[in-house]
Amino acid sequence: MTAGADRTTITRLRERGVTDRAELDALLDGNRLGHIGLVDATGAPVVIPTLVARDGERVLAHGSTGSRWMRRLAEGTPACVTVTALDALVVARSAFESSMRYRSAVLFGHFTALTGEQKDAALDVLTEAVLPGRTAEVRRPTRRELDATLVLALPIDEWSLKRSTEWPDDPDDDVAGPAWAGVVPVRTLYGPPLPAPDLRGGIDVPPSVRRLAAD
Amino acid sequence: MTAGADRTTITRLRERGVTDRAELDALLDGNRLGHIGLVDATGAPVVIPTLVARDGERVLAHGSTGSRWMRRLAEGTPACVTVTALDALVVARSAFESSMRYRSAVLFGHFTALTGEQKDAALDVLTEAVLPGRTAEVRRPTRRELDATLVLALPIDEWSLKRSTEWPDDPDDDVAGPAWAGVVPVRTLYGPPLPAPDLRGGIDVPPSVRRLAAD
Repeated sequence: MTAGADRTTITRLRERGVTDRAELDALLDGNRLGHIGLVDATGAPVVIPTLVARDGERVLAHGSTGSRWMRRLAEGTPACVTVTALDALVVARSAFESSMRYRSAVLFGHFTALTGEQKDAALDVLTEAVLPGRTAEVRRPTRRELDATLVLALPIDEWSLKRSTEWPDDPDDDVAGPAWAGVVPVRTLYGPPLPAPDLRGGIDVPPSVRRLAAD
Repeated sequence: MTAGADRTTITRLRERGVTDRAELDALLDGNRLGHIGLVDATGAPVVIPTLVARDGERVLAHGSTGSRWMRRLAEGTPACVTVTALDALVVARSAFESSMRYRSAVLFGHFTALTGEQKDAALDVLTEAVLPGRTAEVRRPTRRELDATLVLALPIDEWSLKRSTEWPDDPDDDVAGPAWAGVVPVRTLYGPPLPAPDLRGGIDVPPSVRRLAAD
């Protein structure tokens, strides 16, 4: 984390700010949906949802060369990548104290477009991040497919991480009152795999997909 | 949707663009996590995750008066609100064709801060959006609590909606090959409620929380 960077300083609920890089990595490694912010040509903000994955000291994203936002990111426009995990509802005895257990990472910087072997390898990282083991089960990308894809990397340099793992924190008057308080966990699970309508007979669900259900 | 607004025109995968307001409402009503983009004082984008809820023709958000981003939004800085639901992994026979089933809404505009009775009512809408029926189970907010909270509304005016409900769309050569293809649904569920450590005896889990588990 860049020391003293104003935009990565948590200004409220300071106890929620986390500076542990291992926790950042765990959040990024456990969640595939990122929201990338950029500023359009008119100066207005745009937030696009996209697959993101950590590759060591950088965050990867990819998209079509036909996407104007991906192209703008590839040109190095300032970017913000936010990854959020919603872990539970915190049901306090008042609406005011009710909140969420969550973890969120906000990274700032500039993307650069990867090329050549770096690009090939980064696409494998993205595929493996969604479905570990999948690259060994499918053919390699073709030249045409590679040419149609932008692969972008943003260094993990300037970032902040917030985390709430709290229980309801009601004032004594409310604790003495009649309302219930607690936490309701939120869980994201994979359902049973559904074969494609055009799947040929005799092709079993592969190990990569079977492992998802086992998680 | 504002006709002809360049930033809400879907430029690729046109078939995924949806202009049905009912589908926008269904996405917003079914998902509580929003990512709000704004531009900071240096011109750089910032994306903050926050609770959002639809209230008729507007989207509501709230936060502490101590949050600089919420204050900046309250001042009417240009904003983008993105809400994304990840519905399934699309596992194609190649990495290139693999993708996600998702729905995402991107709304543009300016927030305004609500006051008085509008503010009180909007806080109830936010509470009910997370936990229907909860406002009837808890006390009313105090004046001090209201004063500590910013409640913001953005009109649903300029927006775009993308949706993918696709199956793998592999070329014939890949369909004839050995790789599996299909879809793996992603489901978000609530776990069993956990009572707060300081919950007094004899207070049952309330109907609002019980209904979550039944969904």
